[in-house]
Amino acid sequence: MQTLNASIITIGDELLIGQTIDTNSAFIAQELNKIGVWVQRRVAVGDVYHDIWNALEEEGKKSDIIIITGGLGPTADDITKPLLCEYFGGQLIVDQNVLAHVKFLFEKIYRRTGPILERNLNQAQVPNNCIVLHNARGSAPGMWFEKMIAKENNKVPSKTVYISLPGVPHEMKGLVTTEVIPKLLREFSFPSIIHRTVVTSGQGESVIAELIKDFETALPKHIKLAYLPAFGMVRLRLTASSFDKDALNTEMDFHFNQLVSLVKEYVVSESDTPLEVMLGEILRQRKATLSTAESCTGGYISHLITSVAGSSEYFNGGVVSYSNKLKQTILSVSPHTLKTNGAVSEETVREMVKGALDTTGSDYAVATSGIMGPGGGTEAKPVGMVWVTVGNRKSIATKEFHFRFDRERNIRQTAHVALDFLRKFILAND
Amino acid sequence: MQTLNASIITIGDELLIGQTIDTNSAFIAQELNKIGVWVQRRVAVGDVYHDIWNALEEEGKKSDIIIITGGLGPTADDITKPLLCEYFGGQLIVDQNVLAHVKFLFEKIYRRTGPILERNLNQAQVPNNCIVLHNARGSAPGMWFEKMIAKENNKVPSKTVYISLPGVPHEMKGLVTTEVIPKLLREFSFPSIIHRTVVTSGQGESVIAELIKDFETALPKHIKLAYLPAFGMVRLRLTASSFDKDALNTEMDFHFNQLVSLVKEYVVSESDTPLEVMLGEILRQRKATLSTAESCTGGYISHLITSVAGSSEYFNGGVVSYSNKLKQTILSVSPHTLKTNGAVSEETVREMVKGALDTTGSDYAVATSGIMGPGGGTEAKPVGMVWVTVGNRKSIATKEFHFRFDRERNIRQTAHVALDFLRKFILAND
Repeated sequence: MQTLNASIITIGDELLIGQTIDTNSAFIAQELNKIGVWVQRRVAVGDVYHDIWNALEEEGKKSDIIIITGGLGPTADDITKPLLCEYFGGQLIVDQNVLAHVKFLFEKIYRRTGPILERNLNQAQVPNNCIVLHNARGSAPGMWFEKMIAKENNKVPSKTVYISLPGVPHEMKGLVTTEVIPKLLREFSFPSIIHRTVVTSGQGESVIAELIKDFETALPKHIKLAYLPAFGMVRLRLTASSFDKDALNTEMDFHFNQLVSLVKEYVVSESDTPLEVMLGEILRQRKATLSTAESCTGGYISHLITSVAGSSEYFNGGVVSYSNKLKQTILSVSPHTLKTNGAVSEETVREMVKGALDTTGSDYAVATSGIMGPGGGTEAKPVGMVWVTVGNRKSIATKEFHFRFDRERNIRQTAHVALDFLRKFILAND
Repeated sequence: MQTLNASIITIGDELLIGQTIDTNSAFIAQELNKIGVWVQRRVAVGDVYHDIWNALEEEGKKSDIIIITGGLGPTADDITKPLLCEYFGGQLIVDQNVLAHVKFLFEKIYRRTGPILERNLNQAQVPNNCIVLHNARGSAPGMWFEKMIAKENNKVPSKTVYISLPGVPHEMKGLVTTEVIPKLLREFSFPSIIHRTVVTSGQGESVIAELIKDFETALPKHIKLAYLPAFGMVRLRLTASSFDKDALNTEMDFHFNQLVSLVKEYVVSESDTPLEVMLGEILRQRKATLSTAESCTGGYISHLITSVAGSSEYFNGGVVSYSNKLKQTILSVSPHTLKTNGAVSEETVREMVKGALDTTGSDYAVATSGIMGPGGGTEAKPVGMVWVTVGNRKSIATKEFHFRFDRERNIRQTAHVALDFLRKFILAND
């Protein structure tokens, strides 16, 4: 039995002029991947009739499952629904369930007064040859079409499913989770796709590759190895799929353990967990609390930490001491230090950490100060220069970094090295 | 003369399992768009020989310019370079300039000791039938290939350019800006693409669409109108292209002014500027300063504000008072208020704003407190309930919101409504 392939088609001019970053595809790919569907292609096309039609035709020849997002809104630039109707040879009819749901949303949830606009009522129209998927979070329903199509590499037509979803991310997510995945699981039989990821830090992609050269050569063909470098870390990921999940798990364990032992001294984690989640786990285990004192990262570290549900258990909060005045008033950095060494200096970040520990009463604190660019650099303190300090009541550790990126990337990179530095500090000072 | 079309091909399994969100395509699309190239398709394929080959073939029949990112790194999962070499019928040779650059990077910039690894030296190998594009920010060069290809809608072969770039965003960005765009401008002649965007807030997509129904119907066919809803705002964008830029500008002015007058009462901005940039401009004009007091947004508002270069001119910093204790110690929220009304209450956010104004000495402050989920909700204070307060020394204004999204989206949505609320408050209390 073969693995099922999927294509994702995203529709909308905003994706093609670069106005919107496509996060929908990543979510859909993750969810399909979990149930053993391999997404082989993602295609984005504009709100152009001919281009959408062609994409439906082409992807249908390549994939068993085609997921389409976007183009279902109530406005005139959304042409997907009538197009799908024509493509699958159906007619638009009013679906009474969807109609009742649209009315419910407008009257009870959005609390609109006055009559519902015709364009909203039209959202209850669906092609009569699709299965309607209930969109609990919005007015545009999902649609499931089926067609027998011969694939490029196989003359015999096989069942091909087209699923059309709205482009609004939280509506799309709801539909994928509650409707699409359960229905796919009922209609097809899937292999298990297994990923194993080890996260390393401290060495570049090339050095890691050199370390595991022989391992990589000896790896069976059905297990793929990928290098995923990001923020000074390299993730190594093994992937394979099989209908015999237990056997594959055993096989993957064997190779994964080999891999981990080869890169042992650089291992950060043996699971692909974001740094802020790992850190939260470490703090929670120790019943320890944390605060931040951010200058150049401007609240981004704090944002990463609080993006984790339940972070209030270990995160007390922090200070974004962007001005020198706030460094003095809230964090008690001495005016003398600021005058003598400047805000971007080892002395200042050390005092920021001490101040944060005192002001917040937390067990650990992390502080950043640097020049993120594009302006503000000097010869002695160029753009990309950053000081990061972590500490508790017994000791404080400081590191200097030099990044060469744009402002946004410098902020992200600083936040990531700071969280990793803090993670290592807590583990070492346990 | 026809507009040139482009396709963007991104290569990498990480895009297809949803591990990485594709931000490269958005950047490339923006830059191409500026010089009048219409990106008609974006395609993502995995590290699979056959799939990459097919994508090159298919996009070549559709587009004049094909930009390929990813798959040029030093590790074995990167198969793009040998594939491109074979696809265009060339041979890999060592490029002396690239070799010198790789050595320079490793010895002078990365300060590696010991011999350079063979896999890094191999990055100096390029197909002998491409034009090498200098990558100042990394070791993998860009490559420019040309081929005559007949398009689907035209039997006469035309010049088709394939440009291969590394997938590391800051390397790709450098190459696009300094090499790709200038070379495209030398080799082709481009029309101007003109966008005009008006940002509205306070009404949904359907209501706005109803207001401009007649305008939309009467709009000439070569001018496209798009609705782009996000974070409680709706952006309306007009797009058209022409080789006669002046004439098109005049025409666009006419229609854009009509559009703006129709939605006048909801207009936030007549340019597509992010809220945090608009707000910065407003503060700068007034030589006013700002601070934040964030609970539920956990530093995200502060991050948005400081993501703007030069924000230190008007942003003093702020407090992420995640715990009740920090609300009391740094922001002087009274224990009585917290006990009686709770942290998520109108009274608490008002005291947070007052505390922020006092502690930081800023002219304006904004505060948030709410329940972002997934846990922590009660019947009286459900997940998604948020209080936002803005104020200066003379007055304070408060709003209650109810969002229905996941944690991440609730945080973003709160930050956006808070910035918009603040913007309106400053304009009204001038």
